Amino acid sequence: MRLYWSPVELASRLARRGVRYNFASGAPDPGLLPINEIRRSFERIYEKYGAAVIAYPGAGGLRELRIELSRYINKALNIRVDWRNIIITAGAQHAIKILSQLLMRRRTIVYVENPTFVETIAPMKFQGARLIGIPMDDEGMNTHKLENLVRNYGPGIVYTVPNCHNPTGVSLSSDRKRHLLEIAEKHGLKIIEDDPYTSLYPNTGQTLKSMNNDVIYVGTLSKILGPGLRIGFVITSGKLRNDLEKIEQHDFAASTLTQYLVYDLLRRGVAYDVIQKAHELYPRKLRELIESLDEYLPSALMYRPSCGFYAFINTKANAWNLLRRGIKQGILFVPGNKFFINENRPNTARLSIGSIGINLIRDGIKVLSVIMNN
Amino acid sequence: MRLYWSPVELASRLARRGVRYNFASGAPDPGLLPINEIRRSFERIYEKYGAAVIAYPGAGGLRELRIELSRYINKALNIRVDWRNIIITAGAQHAIKILSQLLMRRRTIVYVENPTFVETIAPMKFQGARLIGIPMDDEGMNTHKLENLVRNYGPGIVYTVPNCHNPTGVSLSSDRKRHLLEIAEKHGLKIIEDDPYTSLYPNTGQTLKSMNNDVIYVGTLSKILGPGLRIGFVITSGKLRNDLEKIEQHDFAASTLTQYLVYDLLRRGVAYDVIQKAHELYPRKLRELIESLDEYLPSALMYRPSCGFYAFINTKANAWNLLRRGIKQGILFVPGNKFFINENRPNTARLSIGSIGINLIRDGIKVLSVIMNN
Repeated sequence: MRLYWSPVELASRLARRGVRYNFASGAPDPGLLPINEIRRSFERIYEKYGAAVIAYPGAGGLRELRIELSRYINKALNIRVDWRNIIITAGAQHAIKILSQLLMRRRTIVYVENPTFVETIAPMKFQGARLIGIPMDDEGMNTHKLENLVRNYGPGIVYTVPNCHNPTGVSLSSDRKRHLLEIAEKHGLKIIEDDPYTSLYPNTGQTLKSMNNDVIYVGTLSKILGPGLRIGFVITSGKLRNDLEKIEQHDFAASTLTQYLVYDLLRRGVAYDVIQKAHELYPRKLRELIESLDEYLPSALMYRPSCGFYAFINTKANAWNLLRRGIKQGILFVPGNKFFINENRPNTARLSIGSIGINLIRDGIKVLSVIMNN
Repeated sequence: MRLYWSPVELASRLARRGVRYNFASGAPDPGLLPINEIRRSFERIYEKYGAAVIAYPGAGGLRELRIELSRYINKALNIRVDWRNIIITAGAQHAIKILSQLLMRRRTIVYVENPTFVETIAPMKFQGARLIGIPMDDEGMNTHKLENLVRNYGPGIVYTVPNCHNPTGVSLSSDRKRHLLEIAEKHGLKIIEDDPYTSLYPNTGQTLKSMNNDVIYVGTLSKILGPGLRIGFVITSGKLRNDLEKIEQHDFAASTLTQYLVYDLLRRGVAYDVIQKAHELYPRKLRELIESLDEYLPSALMYRPSCGFYAFINTKANAWNLLRRGIKQGILFVPGNKFFINENRPNTARLSIGSIGINLIRDGIKVLSVIMNN
């Protein structure tokens, strides 16, 4: 089974309409998307660049965008980077796919948090990689257990979402970040850091990339400027950077038009305005989710989320059955079983506060609790 | 050497500026790109759909676009298709890449015209496919020789640009199209038909897909509405259709915004307006190229182009050396060696009339002839 549907997609398909409480979507809050500024940027780039905005994209991405991104990455993510070491991709998922093509083949060992994000590991599985799950707790992956696994399975790649993890919401503690980097150094592991959420919260802790330049960093503008623009990026250097630039030409999928749009949005500071609003909104939404769970489903939380969009819960009964009943009450979430590596955990689910309105969170959890307790 | 730079990219890099006669680019004529209509479509979709135009794209592509495309494909390409059998991709190159991932692995036999388009075979080589070149003449691939090759190497995939071939400009004759389909049926070959140019010319002859529904068809809007939108598509059915929909989720690279744009452009008939103008312009441009070559470089043409953007010539000397000298005179083209399969043909080049102004073609060939004869 090298190809399969994501449970995020399957859950959404079950409920095409009538969703009042959408805890399934990983999309950002619609109220924060700068749709009017995107219109303004369209006018600006149209006036300034004309037909160039629909010309073929160049290798590695639009130079202007890469330069502007290097500033953004420094300011919003505290990572210093030469623009030449930024490769533009058609979203972070596209970045992870082409990295998987370059770095993984049959039986490549890939260490991942367990649970992990089901969609990003799909292209790794397609390559034939052997995924090894690293146990997690409220401080992120257990790095001591990772080291034991590495002793057992040997060197390979670590794929991690260290800050604001998907699907658990936890962040890797500073001590464990240092430990992870030590282990990688000692055992010759490559680290892929997938980091969509760090900029959305204040005080999320450092990125691994800012601590060690060998880390391969995957970033995205999807959660800030809109996922439909499909603009993500990889920060890396040397041979991998060159290979990425070449393999990106096998599809050159990133639209020139949306590259120009993101360039202009960054240039005018729109991303920073959104980040400011995000810093205010998402922590409140996540707190609302946690407090509602504590009140209506006090033993459900399997991990204590610190940031990002997600909380992972024990549903006590089969989550797909629960979902079918939930949909009738207008509630949508993603069953958690497929987020696990070589484990069967059908009584789990991921809840997202990304796109649901803040005022609906408490009600939604109340409805969920009624379904779960009946 | 599984990853390499395209000579199209390399040639463009040699001459960053000062190109007066651009015979290298496969981009469409800038004068035909409907840039004002794209602006109008942006306003329309913004008004009508709001933030939905920057939401995550759905599996298989935007439903409205697929439905509108099924009408376009019927009208412009004479192919009848259920919209569910159209999978949207981020351009035709992206389509060919994901088809390669699904259909090819190490040692998969892939029969391709020799010469063929260097960029589309790059992802096939990356998969480890074994490419077998089919000799060509002015009627396209020699299907009798193909059958001999198949008897020798066994079943596999045929990747072909039957109409308005890249890089030779020839079209497969009707008799050979029928013969190719017979061979495929008899020997169990899968056919991938790559077809970017058919709609740009009147009377290009049938597509293989319209003659046999088993053919896997790859199309694009790049040459009509603008390559920077990155919207292409695959027409296929059954398991391959389902697998494409799933693997497309490994990157979901096609921008929602540009999908909405193309949807609105098709809906308002803009694509048909462009096609009408293309039918008038491109045959004139190609005739101008052929007549200029006949006048200034009478023995250069290796094949007689019938449609599309390209002519393939014998440069009599190493084409890269020639290009370096040509660039000083403001002329750019693509050396042809890499278009060949397992053959060394350094004294060849591809000339494109895609984006060069029609009034510059004759002058450009004159300049080229001076360089070649010195």
